[in-house]
Amino acid sequence: MTESGIGSHKIIRRKRDGELEYLPDDLTIEEPLEIRVGRKPIATTMRTPGHDEELAAGFFRSEGIVRGRDEIASVAKNGDNRVVVELTNGVKLKLNSAKRFGTISSSCGLCGKTSIDAIRQNFTAIRSNGIRIDIETLLSLPETLRKAQSDFARTGGIHAAGIFGMDGKLKIAREDIGRHNAVDKAVGRAFLDELLPLDRHLLLVSGRASFEIIQKALAAGIPIVAAVSAPSSLAVQLARDSNQTLIGFLRPPSFNIYTHIERVIFA
Amino acid sequence: MTESGIGSHKIIRRKRDGELEYLPDDLTIEEPLEIRVGRKPIATTMRTPGHDEELAAGFFRSEGIVRGRDEIASVAKNGDNRVVVELTNGVKLKLNSAKRFGTISSSCGLCGKTSIDAIRQNFTAIRSNGIRIDIETLLSLPETLRKAQSDFARTGGIHAAGIFGMDGKLKIAREDIGRHNAVDKAVGRAFLDELLPLDRHLLLVSGRASFEIIQKALAAGIPIVAAVSAPSSLAVQLARDSNQTLIGFLRPPSFNIYTHIERVIFA
Repeated sequence: MTESGIGSHKIIRRKRDGELEYLPDDLTIEEPLEIRVGRKPIATTMRTPGHDEELAAGFFRSEGIVRGRDEIASVAKNGDNRVVVELTNGVKLKLNSAKRFGTISSSCGLCGKTSIDAIRQNFTAIRSNGIRIDIETLLSLPETLRKAQSDFARTGGIHAAGIFGMDGKLKIAREDIGRHNAVDKAVGRAFLDELLPLDRHLLLVSGRASFEIIQKALAAGIPIVAAVSAPSSLAVQLARDSNQTLIGFLRPPSFNIYTHIERVIFA
Repeated sequence: MTESGIGSHKIIRRKRDGELEYLPDDLTIEEPLEIRVGRKPIATTMRTPGHDEELAAGFFRSEGIVRGRDEIASVAKNGDNRVVVELTNGVKLKLNSAKRFGTISSSCGLCGKTSIDAIRQNFTAIRSNGIRIDIETLLSLPETLRKAQSDFARTGGIHAAGIFGMDGKLKIAREDIGRHNAVDKAVGRAFLDELLPLDRHLLLVSGRASFEIIQKALAAGIPIVAAVSAPSSLAVQLARDSNQTLIGFLRPPSFNIYTHIERVIFA
């Protein structure tokens, strides 16, 4: 990853000894991105610039606006803060799911459904295929993701999402001020490369695991989700129902397993 | 604050010595809340249950759906996961701002505008009134907020927002899985109590300061915003333009000042 997505700004810092200093400081860039289908605005999301086409593609897939890669004819930037998705001829925009998207802040992955009933997307549960990860590999993932991040990201100003193979190899890593955007960018890359379902892969997020993180993993067919921080109650519930293994507080040498322990090899 | 908003769940924990244990664990509750005006659904937000009426009131105020307290006739729960706002006779729902809200995830405060141009709400800049805070008071705030939080919150599973006077006294503290919700709940309480504008107060958030946090503070007339973690580039820009003092990384004895230093007394 690069150092883009950072803005520099002069600040006044009070140091530990009480002295003041005037110095430049790095800020994570947060800017709105409008996503259109043709000329129709579908959503505006607050994101860190970069990998915007992937963000749009991943968002469309996560939200069920498109299902197959072949439904998208093209995804292209139109100015700094707009992405235009063109659907393949004959593909109709599924407005039932899309029509209520508005502006989505930097950590919003679920904005846009009108009622509580509509919140659970209709993605089927993960099918068991016997894939498992061993503990030593699992414990190596946070450090691997950190190494792939920029210096600035390592300070904690930005979220990261990584897609790993069961051998612990990092396939895709993305960063964003919003953790949901980081996941959409990573999944979007895989979706554009026609790699879905990611049914032999693991998703690691640098922060907490909310309901939407699990839902996005489910949309991509990912059977194991690990988070460096805590999952929410609804994340655990969805993971359990969707046959997904959910690991939290992955802070070597410790971690918690919340659901579907059978995919972790303890031997 | 109470221990509500926590769910218990059995997990498998790998301890530091590699041993496994099966034990109960607390999870932050995340559930959808539907906000209606009369029978019309306006938004669904992912939140931690509790103080839901305040959340709805604060959200309506932050988003410019209502301006004055007298525009709301009543706010009441209707079931566990629904709040119904009744507007005062003659007050029309400002659908221009409201019509594009959909579902809002747990940290989304800005969902619902259709275009980039619409993102900046039309709240006027804070008027300078000479209020200032001294450093020792500022440095005391994080500990004061922490003491007001539940044991569970102190572990970091949930965000907190506090509204303080210039003497360092905590007036209102609220918690939520989403930091924007925590701010909406705190501001909503003040709004329902007819305490706006909070032009002699400071808002402290336990996490990062995004654009929306600054916008919500601006909607409530709050001149000083402090965050325990980093602000985003757009947060700094909005604070500068809105005549708001923005303090980040408030971790005694250190902190950074990003904008409008004149409200901090260094003597």
